[in-house]
Amino acid sequence: MERPHVPEASQFRFRVRLRTRWCDEDNQQVLNNAVYLTLFEEARLAYFTQLGFLRANQFPFLLAQTNVVFVALGRGGVEVDLEARTTSLGTTSFTQSYRVLDAARGTVWAQAEARLVIYDPGSGAKRAMEPAFRAAIAGFEGLD
Amino acid sequence: MERPHVPEASQFRFRVRLRTRWCDEDNQQVLNNAVYLTLFEEARLAYFTQLGFLRANQFPFLLAQTNVVFVALGRGGVEVDLEARTTSLGTTSFTQSYRVLDAARGTVWAQAEARLVIYDPGSGAKRAMEPAFRAAIAGFEGLD
Amino acid sequence: MERPHVPEASQFRFRVRLRTRWCDEDNQQVLNNAVYLTLFEEARLAYFTQLGFLRANQFPFLLAQTNVVFVALGRGGVEVDLEARTTSLGTTSFTQSYRVLDAARGTVWAQAEARLVIYDPGSGAKRAMEPAFRAAIAGFEGLD
Amino acid sequence: MERPHVPEASQFRFRVRLRTRWCDEDNQQVLNNAVYLTLFEEARLAYFTQLGFLRANQFPFLLAQTNVVFVALGRGGVEVDLEARTTSLGTTSFTQSYRVLDAARGTVWAQAEARLVIYDPGSGAKRAMEPAFRAAIAGFEGLD
Repeated sequence: MERPHVPEASQFRFRVRLRTRWCDEDNQQVLNNAVYLTLFEEARLAYFTQLGFLRANQFPFLLAQTNVVFVALGRGGVEVDLEARTTSLGTTSFTQSYRVLDAARGTVWAQAEARLVIYDPGSGAKRAMEPAFRAAIAGFEGLD
Repeated sequence: MERPHVPEASQFRFRVRLRTRWCDEDNQQVLNNAVYLTLFEEARLAYFTQLGFLRANQFPFLLAQTNVVFVALGRGGVEVDLEARTTSLGTTSFTQSYRVLDAARGTVWAQAEARLVIYDPGSGAKRAMEPAFRAAIAGFEGLD
Repeated sequence: MERPHVPEASQFRFRVRLRTRWCDEDNQQVLNNAVYLTLFEEARLAYFTQLGFLRANQFPFLLAQTNVVFVALGRGGVEVDLEARTTSLGTTSFTQSYRVLDAARGTVWAQAEARLVIYDPGSGAKRAMEPAFRAAIAGFEGLD
Repeated sequence: MERPHVPEASQFRFRVRLRTRWCDEDNQQVLNNAVYLTLFEEARLAYFTQLGFLRANQFPFLLAQTNVVFVALGRGGVEVDLEARTTSLGTTSFTQSYRVLDAARGTVWAQAEARLVIYDPGSGAKRAMEPAFRAAIAGFEGLD
């Protein structure tokens, strides 16, 4: 299975400090795997809130694919740092990469790649990316 | 991003009927992406319960990587069919593929590939797959 | 703290078989307390689906209060029976009681009382209960 | 249904700033009811971490009863303030009260009362409260 493409640590321009919850640990006493997708979603929330693209607390896109590699055992009830970077912008979709780090130790717990598809919340159909959306991301990330 | 390798529908030998929960829908009124990892985990639970490898409600492995593609919008509060197949058996790890289908319509919502690593719950270290575990899976799946 | 008012077992007219999920157990290896509210919500989903009052997968009410007593340790990944009964119908609200039982053993894990308030999803304001809603519940439960 | 006993706002001595998650909103676009129990649990985590009574990320007690009143519609993806106060100490149990407030507006979303029972994680049986536990809480809260 191909590993997710994740930029060098120095290339991430967006980082947000979050917390895992106590109940995020499952009965094997590690952070449950599904919680990582929630953490990446929280990173998207902070990223697109900063860029100004949430409307009525909704994203203008849906997750189409994600490839996640789990590197170290995570814990519940602790601080984590989430990093996100948009790595490419297409016509109706874009790709992002994420890392989640133990805030106290700086170690990486997991990293991932994702493809997000722009959609119309009314019809559920995919649609073209708006120019303002593209420009804001390209400007923030230094993409062409 | 490479798509997950998923066998032909006819090759899945394991299927279990489950339900999504009403609260699995997020505010965009679709099944939240993290819930799919929970559904695949429930498929593993049913699969390894049938093969007899749960101990004190714990799995003898951890998720090391997963690549998920979201094909159609899922719903909360409905019946779903989960399919699982072990596709390869290594020394300390194995790979599985999954599909989740809307039980009422037979349509695929998502499919995924995963790599699971055998580990020792006491130390957290990975360890070799036990012969009985390998034999049971190989027998069930018709693998060498 | 006053205990919830819950009818005698023989008075429950609605029961639905559900499953807990493996990840519903927390790191103390019991069903996490918040999951019980989700199970009671799933009981409401089945109850009001049967009576025909879900619209676009939404309830015409919101939870206003709930009082839950935890009687025995619950488990993840097992079958449970959920019982629900509407115990009173007011002008803008109604009360229900619930029990969750281990399906394999018949033992009660938790029981609860709840007050639900009819509301308008557009404005979020509470509103009067519709006559058809009242009549359907009163008929099903044998209430005046 | 009796409302939960909650102290005057001025009597709470413990407050912690937390965040709700985006996916905590359900398809009615409000904070799902079960999430409130998770928030109260996070308040307990912060409270007992401060007092020094978590062991291996586990609580020395289980929730035995909780009575929650939902006062205003909550939102996902925002900051909240959680307040907790221990209101009485028994031989094998104690009671706490909680409030969750919208951090930006200072409005109360929900308040609750809970009874927690000291237990032995090995056997699952309830046991007497340790003197050091009682003394630490009594000292912090100014209880006899």
